[in-house]
Amino acid sequence: MTQALALGIDIGGTNTAFGIVNRRGEIIAKGNMPTTGHDTPHHYIAALRHELTPLLDSAGRENFEGVGIGAPNGNFFTGEIVFAPNLPWRGVIPMAKMIGEALNLKAVLTNDANAAAIGEMTYGVAKGLRDFIVVTLGTGLGSGFVANGELIYGHDGFAGELGHVIAVREGRICGCGRNGCLETYASATGIVRTANEWLAERNTPTVLRAMQPNITSRIIHEAAMQGDVFALEIFEFTGKILGQTLADTITITSPEAIIFFGGLAKSGDMLFDHVRTHIEHNLLNIYKNKVSLMQSALPDADAAILGASALVW
Amino acid sequence: MTQALALGIDIGGTNTAFGIVNRRGEIIAKGNMPTTGHDTPHHYIAALRHELTPLLDSAGRENFEGVGIGAPNGNFFTGEIVFAPNLPWRGVIPMAKMIGEALNLKAVLTNDANAAAIGEMTYGVAKGLRDFIVVTLGTGLGSGFVANGELIYGHDGFAGELGHVIAVREGRICGCGRNGCLETYASATGIVRTANEWLAERNTPTVLRAMQPNITSRIIHEAAMQGDVFALEIFEFTGKILGQTLADTITITSPEAIIFFGGLAKSGDMLFDHVRTHIEHNLLNIYKNKVSLMQSALPDADAAILGASALVW
Repeated sequence: MTQALALGIDIGGTNTAFGIVNRRGEIIAKGNMPTTGHDTPHHYIAALRHELTPLLDSAGRENFEGVGIGAPNGNFFTGEIVFAPNLPWRGVIPMAKMIGEALNLKAVLTNDANAAAIGEMTYGVAKGLRDFIVVTLGTGLGSGFVANGELIYGHDGFAGELGHVIAVREGRICGCGRNGCLETYASATGIVRTANEWLAERNTPTVLRAMQPNITSRIIHEAAMQGDVFALEIFEFTGKILGQTLADTITITSPEAIIFFGGLAKSGDMLFDHVRTHIEHNLLNIYKNKVSLMQSALPDADAAILGASALVW
Repeated sequence: MTQALALGIDIGGTNTAFGIVNRRGEIIAKGNMPTTGHDTPHHYIAALRHELTPLLDSAGRENFEGVGIGAPNGNFFTGEIVFAPNLPWRGVIPMAKMIGEALNLKAVLTNDANAAAIGEMTYGVAKGLRDFIVVTLGTGLGSGFVANGELIYGHDGFAGELGHVIAVREGRICGCGRNGCLETYASATGIVRTANEWLAERNTPTVLRAMQPNITSRIIHEAAMQGDVFALEIFEFTGKILGQTLADTITITSPEAIIFFGGLAKSGDMLFDHVRTHIEHNLLNIYKNKVSLMQSALPDADAAILGASALVW
């Protein structure tokens, strides 16, 4: 008996996760590989193909209806990845076409955070919601906006780059070449940047000082859990910047919920208590106390894999 | 022969415009009255009813299918006007119900800028566009967002309050009680505020100094047209603040066009050349040189009246 299967691939700044998904939304096999360390997209795809071949073969290639791909700066309309500041390769990469040809499968691509939003709407905490935002706090900050039950793609397929809203005028330089983008503050790399900047500027005692130059968002979280005042203040600062920007964003689409996931979202209330405080503090009164902040209940990469695979059906 | 007619009412901060519209989108009669000068919403509605009665009677009351209302902070879902900083009355006003009862017509209400967006989409320059923003530069700054061909109402009907996005942190105090809202800079009242602030702070010679305290956005425009450097600089400043905020907004919904109307929009390229410059300067590269800035081609109040009336059908 043949089974309808989809391959879902989530291309992150650091890691690529993939999984085989059936019609019921069950991930029946999965794996991952580094996104970095491949000089060109061609090398990357050769490595990806090498990883995927045994999986596809064992599930039976004839069962696959296609491959769905989530990627930073991915464009649903063209299947291209375009000037992605958090990927190792520059310029415009026709990734859907390249992966489709390499695997001999019909390929559809979208923004990684859009894929996550579709995953949350189909299988996660956003089931039944018609107006919500998904914010991914990974290497960068991605977002997917749903309004009237539909993903907002914009006229060109590039809507929803919340990570590149200017959170601080004349602020930190961003990988995109501009200054003050939200993701330079509120992301796994942004919070590490805050730690390193503050360590250089201040003499406050903190357990983080000894960890340089190997500080990660997880290390900052652990220090904060142990009551390190410096680390706690980093979370407060990060939550403030994120909360201020989200308050402005709510003013535009008035979502019922904001759903967070990604590495930094694992810090939970350590971060989100501050985010909530600064959202509410900055909201126009008609929006106050209405927006739920949620954490994705889907295991880490699963929302993105499920969302990517849902593009196939 | 009976005719299907709708009454459209646009409640602005200063002026209320109304018109009788037929199915073909022709305004067959119109008028206006001040919004201000009525102590309570009940007094306002009594005056409105007085103005409308001869119009409704001469067109034949039996021909009307209903009344559509556009109002600042109007909520499509509840028919209420909620905490509108630019209207003379505070709190929550069940305006659709009150007008419906006063006129004995089915009444539907939405945000004034949403009504304008529907008007532009149905009869104006947005015809055929699926992703665009309408920005009204009147007493305040209103906005209506269309994505995937549908107005974004948000989960509570309050989406699209671009005038209350924080353009300048810790900036000017706004009627909403917060600081730095876009409309305190980019609106007919905002630009006058800039003029008065600068006149108090600077000694630059300008024809505007003699006009105090009666400066209007129109007077500033006329001074700029005559080459008054101070007035020209006011337009540059206003265009910069508006352009910066619109660049962030584009990052969220990626519209094909931004359509402006309202009193301040009449300044045309005097304002929009600067808006364009600062949008492009602040945009993430994937959005550059893609967004058209347009001025509404519909006569002043007509877009709002037509949009409001279109709610009835």
